[in-house]
Amino acid sequence: MALIVQKYGGSSVATAERILAVAKRIVDAKMGGDSLVVVVSAMGKTTDELIRLAHQVSQEPDEREMDLLMSTGETVSATLMAMALRSMGHGAISLTAGQAGIHTDALYGRARIQAVDSERLRRELDAGKVVIVTGFQGVTDQFDITTLGRGGSDTTAVALAVALKADRCDIYTDVDGVYTTDPRIVSQARKLEEISYEEMLEMAQLGSKVMHPRSVELGEAFGMPIMVRSSFNDEMGTLIHEVGGMETRNRVRGIAHDLNVGKITVAGVPDRPGLAASVFEPLAQAGVSVDVIVQNVSVEGATDLSFTVGRTDLAKALRIIEPLANQIGAQLVTSTDNLGKVSVVGAGIQSAPGIASAMFRTLFDAGINIEMITTSEIRITCCVDRERVLEAVQKLHEAFELDKA
Amino acid sequence: MALIVQKYGGSSVATAERILAVAKRIVDAKMGGDSLVVVVSAMGKTTDELIRLAHQVSQEPDEREMDLLMSTGETVSATLMAMALRSMGHGAISLTAGQAGIHTDALYGRARIQAVDSERLRRELDAGKVVIVTGFQGVTDQFDITTLGRGGSDTTAVALAVALKADRCDIYTDVDGVYTTDPRIVSQARKLEEISYEEMLEMAQLGSKVMHPRSVELGEAFGMPIMVRSSFNDEMGTLIHEVGGMETRNRVRGIAHDLNVGKITVAGVPDRPGLAASVFEPLAQAGVSVDVIVQNVSVEGATDLSFTVGRTDLAKALRIIEPLANQIGAQLVTSTDNLGKVSVVGAGIQSAPGIASAMFRTLFDAGINIEMITTSEIRITCCVDRERVLEAVQKLHEAFELDKA
Repeated sequence: MALIVQKYGGSSVATAERILAVAKRIVDAKMGGDSLVVVVSAMGKTTDELIRLAHQVSQEPDEREMDLLMSTGETVSATLMAMALRSMGHGAISLTAGQAGIHTDALYGRARIQAVDSERLRRELDAGKVVIVTGFQGVTDQFDITTLGRGGSDTTAVALAVALKADRCDIYTDVDGVYTTDPRIVSQARKLEEISYEEMLEMAQLGSKVMHPRSVELGEAFGMPIMVRSSFNDEMGTLIHEVGGMETRNRVRGIAHDLNVGKITVAGVPDRPGLAASVFEPLAQAGVSVDVIVQNVSVEGATDLSFTVGRTDLAKALRIIEPLANQIGAQLVTSTDNLGKVSVVGAGIQSAPGIASAMFRTLFDAGINIEMITTSEIRITCCVDRERVLEAVQKLHEAFELDKA
Repeated sequence: MALIVQKYGGSSVATAERILAVAKRIVDAKMGGDSLVVVVSAMGKTTDELIRLAHQVSQEPDEREMDLLMSTGETVSATLMAMALRSMGHGAISLTAGQAGIHTDALYGRARIQAVDSERLRRELDAGKVVIVTGFQGVTDQFDITTLGRGGSDTTAVALAVALKADRCDIYTDVDGVYTTDPRIVSQARKLEEISYEEMLEMAQLGSKVMHPRSVELGEAFGMPIMVRSSFNDEMGTLIHEVGGMETRNRVRGIAHDLNVGKITVAGVPDRPGLAASVFEPLAQAGVSVDVIVQNVSVEGATDLSFTVGRTDLAKALRIIEPLANQIGAQLVTSTDNLGKVSVVGAGIQSAPGIASAMFRTLFDAGINIEMITTSEIRITCCVDRERVLEAVQKLHEAFELDKA
């Protein structure tokens, strides 16, 4: 008998009808002999509605109050799911984050799980019940309610799976797995049967919305197998796990892209030790994530420093960089918000011969100019004109024959 | 500096605008120097909406799950109220029943408060904050959420006032106090400045919807002064407290009525010891409350037993009584559902000369036939034809000159 943690997102539990459909699915798994913990998100648009209410009474709602308010969304869906299961004749109980022993720090809106006290969870499982747990939330040592921020419910599911030493964590979503690239862009995109944690992390960080990187990192740290699958059909999805074997390495596994890239160039700045720190520390303090960084070779003691940020962070970053440019003696600050990124992802590809050159050649043949390049052990990313990104994805998917298994 | 517990019902917090209006009122009280704990109900129709959702997934929703689901309604209004106060520049924090230390038994849907651990409440009050507490709910020793059933939020407010040794508990509602009778029936009805706990209990039990008897009983047991007042104006309401002084005793203080009365008569039953018990015990076990009971004097060893029940309980009571009638040798069971009750209420009136006779005379003069009579120390109740009840209320209000202070 396997112990499985399942997680259903907001669209899977958006209405009473969908809750009943998911309950039916849970019953099938339970009848198949599995022990089940089920993590649920808030129903459909509930969270948006609660945020709207909060902003009707306060321009800047207090974070602690906001978290307690938000937590009601998952409590509603969890109790309804438990009721639905009981109405089908199966033992079920819903547990809030506090009841499920999910302890976090007190960083409201972006709390981190510190420990899971699984005593009550185990007790309810031992009694044969399906245990429904509210996703996205935790409780401080003062019993105040926190929320985990983006990707929170996935993180709840993986954390519970780890704490309970579950056999697998199934993330049910509105797509049926992880694809070689976005199927809306490339119709030949192929569902991957499996993918390694590190590849999934890159795919997630590079714009694949299937799972938040945070929950993948947690899975990787504890070696918890995670399956991404559809809540609307019974197909197997994509298993994220430690992929072994030489064959799966050194090959491009997927193409990721990101249309929201802004670039800032600080030109003609005297090159001296500590330059990068003096530019990037203030940005980090302001919560601006810097991605691709390129520093030109110095010419006559001066250099150009270019870096990308999320497009929505561009104005904020410029407000920090422009006054700073004077202090560090730069001649010019320029920026553009019309860039995008395209990346090829695969374990070991940085050191695999021919992959980088094949990527550059493909883009060159298509007449797509590369503005910046960055690589990690498992990906190669090119910044290109935003209007050419989707074409680049198509060409690369074809060039690396990702439509073939 | 006084410590006041305020309670606002669902209609007072039905929209963001009303929450802001109530927050303004709380700020005024706070600026006046009072320490405040504020108990809130769920917003307007929230509870109905949650019940509707539950019945979409389950015909008979589990009680534990139902209570946890219901509890989200008050959590939403409590957090919004705290946000509204903070947006006005005042320290405020919302506490769930668990955080506020409201411990109950595990009788879901109708839990009883067992203890209030006020440590956190005091800590937040000492920090100068307005503490907003979710009404209607508690927590078991397993940290499961319970609801208190009818009149729950009023009970929460009075219980917190008692635990904190507050100076007063203010119940804000959509009426501006307790009236000599229902002002919709008698336009000359007058708001009472004060009323004793026992009088208020009778008024509540006899159909006045202003407060649930349960919270009044709690106030009486601990001598907590309760003021019923309007959340839509600044008028003083009616103070429920231990009324001293001879002048306020032995006078009719109010007229109550109830239009939902059913009567059952078990006729021609052999009169023997234990007869009443054999009839009323099965009813009590089935949860049917019996109100007025009249047993005729025995004639030739046989008697008639008549009693009233709530009209909605009449069919259920008959299903119990009819088979029983055979066993106890009764000749006939008859019933009617077209009765109502009218009561005069006032401390000490049972023993005050002239009040009962004045009541009977007033009804007689109006041609209203009295079917049954029952009295307690502080009320005299007559069962009459339901269609004559409102007229009876008007005549009695006039006869006892209740429009005059």
